[in-house]
Amino acid sequence: MKIESVDFFYLSMPVVEDIGDGSQDATLVRVRAGGLEGWGECEASPLPTIAAYVCPMSHSACKPVRYSVEGMPLNEPADIVRIGQKVHANSFDLLQADHTLSGIDIALWDLLGKKLGEPVYSLLGYKKAYPKTPYASQLFGDTPAQTYEKAVQSRASGYKAVKFGWGPIGKGSAAEDAAHFRAAREGLGGDAYLMIDIGTVWGEDVATAEQRLEALKEVNAYWLEEPFANMALGPYKALSGCTPRIPLAAGEGCNNYVQAAAMLDFAGLGFVQIDTGRIGGITPAKRVADEAAAKGITYVNHTFTSHLALSASLQPYAGVEKDVICEYPVEPRQLALDITTDRILPDANGQVTVPEKPGLGLTINTEGLKPYLQDMQITINGKTHYQTPLL
Amino acid sequence: MKIESVDFFYLSMPVVEDIGDGSQDATLVRVRAGGLEGWGECEASPLPTIAAYVCPMSHSACKPVRYSVEGMPLNEPADIVRIGQKVHANSFDLLQADHTLSGIDIALWDLLGKKLGEPVYSLLGYKKAYPKTPYASQLFGDTPAQTYEKAVQSRASGYKAVKFGWGPIGKGSAAEDAAHFRAAREGLGGDAYLMIDIGTVWGEDVATAEQRLEALKEVNAYWLEEPFANMALGPYKALSGCTPRIPLAAGEGCNNYVQAAAMLDFAGLGFVQIDTGRIGGITPAKRVADEAAAKGITYVNHTFTSHLALSASLQPYAGVEKDVICEYPVEPRQLALDITTDRILPDANGQVTVPEKPGLGLTINTEGLKPYLQDMQITINGKTHYQTPLL
Repeated sequence: MKIESVDFFYLSMPVVEDIGDGSQDATLVRVRAGGLEGWGECEASPLPTIAAYVCPMSHSACKPVRYSVEGMPLNEPADIVRIGQKVHANSFDLLQADHTLSGIDIALWDLLGKKLGEPVYSLLGYKKAYPKTPYASQLFGDTPAQTYEKAVQSRASGYKAVKFGWGPIGKGSAAEDAAHFRAAREGLGGDAYLMIDIGTVWGEDVATAEQRLEALKEVNAYWLEEPFANMALGPYKALSGCTPRIPLAAGEGCNNYVQAAAMLDFAGLGFVQIDTGRIGGITPAKRVADEAAAKGITYVNHTFTSHLALSASLQPYAGVEKDVICEYPVEPRQLALDITTDRILPDANGQVTVPEKPGLGLTINTEGLKPYLQDMQITINGKTHYQTPLL
Repeated sequence: MKIESVDFFYLSMPVVEDIGDGSQDATLVRVRAGGLEGWGECEASPLPTIAAYVCPMSHSACKPVRYSVEGMPLNEPADIVRIGQKVHANSFDLLQADHTLSGIDIALWDLLGKKLGEPVYSLLGYKKAYPKTPYASQLFGDTPAQTYEKAVQSRASGYKAVKFGWGPIGKGSAAEDAAHFRAAREGLGGDAYLMIDIGTVWGEDVATAEQRLEALKEVNAYWLEEPFANMALGPYKALSGCTPRIPLAAGEGCNNYVQAAAMLDFAGLGFVQIDTGRIGGITPAKRVADEAAAKGITYVNHTFTSHLALSASLQPYAGVEKDVICEYPVEPRQLALDITTDRILPDANGQVTVPEKPGLGLTINTEGLKPYLQDMQITINGKTHYQTPLL
């Protein structure tokens, strides 16, 4: 079959707040071919992401993403690989293109899985999908007392792994950060995995990061996430050599395979975190999972939004039995919950597994999404380049 | 003074051809403050770049670029540094943001230079601007005979340095590539600098690159540019250790400082090529120039479009006497020539130097640009987010 249409939908909550919650809007992609539909989601700003699909060509290496997708054959996994290669060859000077490609690639795997009657992880070559232990992502409280309360609640909800991040962390003194770390550990109890996410606040500042290592060791932090800007390889490498040693986690900002490979090669990471909605989709994410396994680095998904995005983010390492931790959206906005009619829920052991149904194994809730749909139009010299399509 | 307005203009030739010529359209930025105007240019796809300026906020780290710019104080260089930091903090999940920031940062330096009555290189801390030897960028011919003819013409035009790239190179056999390399050298004569640009065609394929090293040595190639994808650090490092040794040049695709720093640290480069229109402007480019000097790596500008972009691209290393080679747009489209009323022309020695006038030292040809101006409109739920402003 050939790709017949690719449609982008900009969905949003009525109000988007200035907080670190990426589930307040969504860029949803629908691909149609051979009487079937596949769906994907870009973890990306909707307007620029859609613009990268429909923009006029600037030159031979700065073409709109649509140039490399529409009308292409889609019969086997190699066809999806080929589409990604075409996008890179034709659009490598269009920075946003990788975020646009991400949702398309995910939709193509969903569509191909439906055509071939197989779940995506199986098309990727895995024989079995193993259960993962979900961790709850939480924002730090404004005060250590609030952080403690949040940790107590997470424990009560049954999570065996909790990540705290953003909010005030990293912006004050080392003592203030340590107070938050201790509050989180006290609230969680001694057994739970505790991860700490700095959200790149320290930029390239190794000394500031180093001052927090003792406190992180004291609370037995499972990992320290994004102390520095994505791709700040020198600072990551330097911190990875400091004592006490805390395993570093990073990679969610990588927008293609070669960036993630550079992180694996040179950043001294213990964990590589990949968002399939940013790195160009499931295809490059699977390459990262293979490369991480070869290098003894643990792969973890990055996802904070819908269960469609969750399913996509789990597929690249669904068959890697030893990489057991996964990110799981704990408190997404209603929009993210409304994207699918079904969800990936924890089993009796508190673990989650990708669906066994074809493709990504979830059903899009097209009726339920209509209230969130943004009516957008882009015109150039009177010609309409984008008009929100019908859901 | 405070930044009063930031306006984006999408300019285009009537027809954009599917060739490796980035001068066929332009994203021009005008910043106004204190009764003055500064101008900059993003080396980027216009629609997505403008979209990243005007899009609605998705979350706290995915805000439109405008959020971090409008109303900000602009009185000294540190204010421009601060604006770049704000953009990164507020928009680091918006991939296109760095390309958008690039033109703004350039316009801010132009504006501040005009206010303070100093050329940009002086504001950057350089005492003197040294002349550079321009190299002519050429596309390879379709056949070695055509490449030879182009090289003969370049020599006749008086260029002492010529770069050949793109076209058929790297896509056929090693013998075919070698025939083009030899044709270029024969046409140029033995004295001229000859650079070879692969345009990332080999992706991550070190073996294919290695097969060309003997032929590159034979023609005394001054550098081998972009054999691999930007940020493919492992492949770059591996090729840099192969014999015969050909100095590697790369970096034009870096969209922020930390990426370029990673290339300097881990790619084994001899030359780092920075496009101020992509890396976030003159501010991060100057940091790269300083870091390259500290590491003994030669800095070279990357620019292929207007003389405004040329002036911006030269400022970050204008005061580095030993880094003498510069890229110079030899055959840009009329649009690129029409952006300024004045130009940076070779002197009697065939060398070029940045203007001594305040800011970037060039005058924007607002009247002459009107025929190229694209009338663009972006609306969301009936609200206009972008409408082409008056030039």
